[in-house]
Amino acid sequence: MSLNFADRLNNVETSAIRELFKLLGKPGIISFAGGFPDSAMFDVDGIRIAANAALTKEPGAALQYGATEGYGPLREQIASFMQKKGTQDLAPDQLIVTTGSQQALDLLGKTMISPGDKVIVEGPTFLATIQCFRLYGAELISAPVDGEGVKTDELERLIEEHRPKFVYLIPTFGNPSGALLSEERRRAVLAMAVKHQTLIVEDDPYGDLYFGEAPPPSLLALSAQVPGSRDLLVHCGSLSKVLSPGLRVGWMVGPPELLAKATMCKQFSDAHTSTFAQATAAQYLIDGRMPGTLAKVRKVYAERAAAMGDALRRELGDAIEFVQPQGGLFIWARLTGFNGMLSDGAEFARRAIENNVAFVPGAPFYANNPDFSTLRLSFATVGIDKIEEGIARLGASL
Amino acid sequence: MSLNFADRLNNVETSAIRELFKLLGKPGIISFAGGFPDSAMFDVDGIRIAANAALTKEPGAALQYGATEGYGPLREQIASFMQKKGTQDLAPDQLIVTTGSQQALDLLGKTMISPGDKVIVEGPTFLATIQCFRLYGAELISAPVDGEGVKTDELERLIEEHRPKFVYLIPTFGNPSGALLSEERRRAVLAMAVKHQTLIVEDDPYGDLYFGEAPPPSLLALSAQVPGSRDLLVHCGSLSKVLSPGLRVGWMVGPPELLAKATMCKQFSDAHTSTFAQATAAQYLIDGRMPGTLAKVRKVYAERAAAMGDALRRELGDAIEFVQPQGGLFIWARLTGFNGMLSDGAEFARRAIENNVAFVPGAPFYANNPDFSTLRLSFATVGIDKIEEGIARLGASL
Repeated sequence: MSLNFADRLNNVETSAIRELFKLLGKPGIISFAGGFPDSAMFDVDGIRIAANAALTKEPGAALQYGATEGYGPLREQIASFMQKKGTQDLAPDQLIVTTGSQQALDLLGKTMISPGDKVIVEGPTFLATIQCFRLYGAELISAPVDGEGVKTDELERLIEEHRPKFVYLIPTFGNPSGALLSEERRRAVLAMAVKHQTLIVEDDPYGDLYFGEAPPPSLLALSAQVPGSRDLLVHCGSLSKVLSPGLRVGWMVGPPELLAKATMCKQFSDAHTSTFAQATAAQYLIDGRMPGTLAKVRKVYAERAAAMGDALRRELGDAIEFVQPQGGLFIWARLTGFNGMLSDGAEFARRAIENNVAFVPGAPFYANNPDFSTLRLSFATVGIDKIEEGIARLGASL
Repeated sequence: MSLNFADRLNNVETSAIRELFKLLGKPGIISFAGGFPDSAMFDVDGIRIAANAALTKEPGAALQYGATEGYGPLREQIASFMQKKGTQDLAPDQLIVTTGSQQALDLLGKTMISPGDKVIVEGPTFLATIQCFRLYGAELISAPVDGEGVKTDELERLIEEHRPKFVYLIPTFGNPSGALLSEERRRAVLAMAVKHQTLIVEDDPYGDLYFGEAPPPSLLALSAQVPGSRDLLVHCGSLSKVLSPGLRVGWMVGPPELLAKATMCKQFSDAHTSTFAQATAAQYLIDGRMPGTLAKVRKVYAERAAAMGDALRRELGDAIEFVQPQGGLFIWARLTGFNGMLSDGAEFARRAIENNVAFVPGAPFYANNPDFSTLRLSFATVGIDKIEEGIARLGASL
């Protein structure tokens, strides 16, 4: 017999990108397709030391069931980490630990979205956000993005028109756009949250990965200056891009009522995040190794981003346009169709694979009205020599 | 402003048990209320050795993003573990790793339950199952249980009447009932799955915790003997009760189509289970320490279960009735009201707390038609002296 699945599964489809990823096992391929940090950057020694200390100091806590809200010492360390980044007034009980920030998105969906509810996202936005919210029956509306992040005038018009359940943004080095929302626009977002009494979700997995100057303060940090906005703000953070995705340690800051509901939902989702991973992460932060790790990661990714930008300008010239990223993992580019050259990202990806180089076409990152000329290139996991070789292959694929 | 939460939250309420648990911090209390294994049983050295080996051998895999289906070597080890327990034909790709078996329940809900769908559970059943499925809009129907587990004639009648999306059972040392489903009834369940083409979910976190003879084969193992039943069977397993809950490593065996859908849902729930925890668990199983750990845990819990049973018979006599458990963590008892004595479990729990002993009243474990005279006592985390002292206090509370 064929099983009769839940209706909500009709709202999502297997991603086109998954099919592409099956091709990446091809020998000799240079891949800019991933959304991963570089495994070679992981502070394995530091994590080993932290795990051993956690098992020695509090083996019971590290291996037993724990509070759904998160392991106390980790909540304290995350609050301290966030305080140092500008949210001076954040208390440990104003955040819950999640199983990666992906689970924060899932809990937001479960807690907030009834079938048919509208949610505004950036166009383009994180692919797994689109699918996650659609599984809860959300109707997604895309707000356009430029080099400075979401266009706030357009966003406000969409809020007025659609009265969404919430607005989901990745303001800092967004996936896939790489864009950095300007401080002026950040203030505008917080003002419109208050004016329209609209919940804003700030997803911030990349904010620590800046290459030069630190980016403007997070919406969470700025909310202290915009009365009433903190009550309408959810902030999602993660150790995945800066320390290790394998720990699956993320967190969610939000209004107390929302955190209480999300905690109840989490209780029935996975009871709690691995206390073994939480105790290890807490000890890692206590050990004070994070600033050194961040400095190293920033330096390496900055060099790779610069190398990829230079190579793209050299090898593809007028055929593409992009804003050189100031942080994060990605270059987001658009095929211009200059001189009658190729302007379809998916076709370009197919030709590139034939030339042993991979990236992700941009269209699937749009919840609606895709721009088929876009593409996402990750510079994070490939050394500079391979970046130059790979981009040269890309140039040859055009 | 007050936030406007999703409609699904109206289907659940904060558990009455949570309120009780707030009282457990009282100094000097002896608690039989938990559903935890004993932290003192954790093989901390074995887990430390496994974690260090995982970080040394494959630090990239242990710390990087991983496949949503689970870490390959862990899937192999779990398949091997299940093969040794009687499911000889289980292949690694017939299971996915979940973030504890709680997540298996969540994925089942997400994958299978549309609002209004009916699901049959045991009365009583695991509290977090009730809440988890209700969050997806399930209407739950309770099938009655006796000392040999679910009454299969009643179950078949309910399947015919309600045509449920699936039937959820904890056949072996169930929480809270402690009951062991007889082999005859196991065969009856599999036969009715095929006859009525009804999906059966076997949740089996306690099956390894037997005190004397091994229990009858799991429904999964027996399904090899009942043609067509494997295609209608989901089996959930976990390392939480036998090794460590803090790892959050569970698994789900099921028909390929269902596993594919559940994997898609998991991708948007938490991307994957902590690879650090998975690699540690895999290495622990590879190291061959599990049989020794199981032998130790079985022996200690068996002694405690016997001590609690003896004390209950001695101290409470005709005031309660229960079936002495053959495994698991729990004694499930009923107040008889003999000689006009107390027969309300919640009132008994209140009096017991005043006498510095705690247990959980049984009514909340029923999805409907609660038996208010029931109670659940865990013998797992309390030494024998304290068990005898605690049960004496219980006797005095009557």
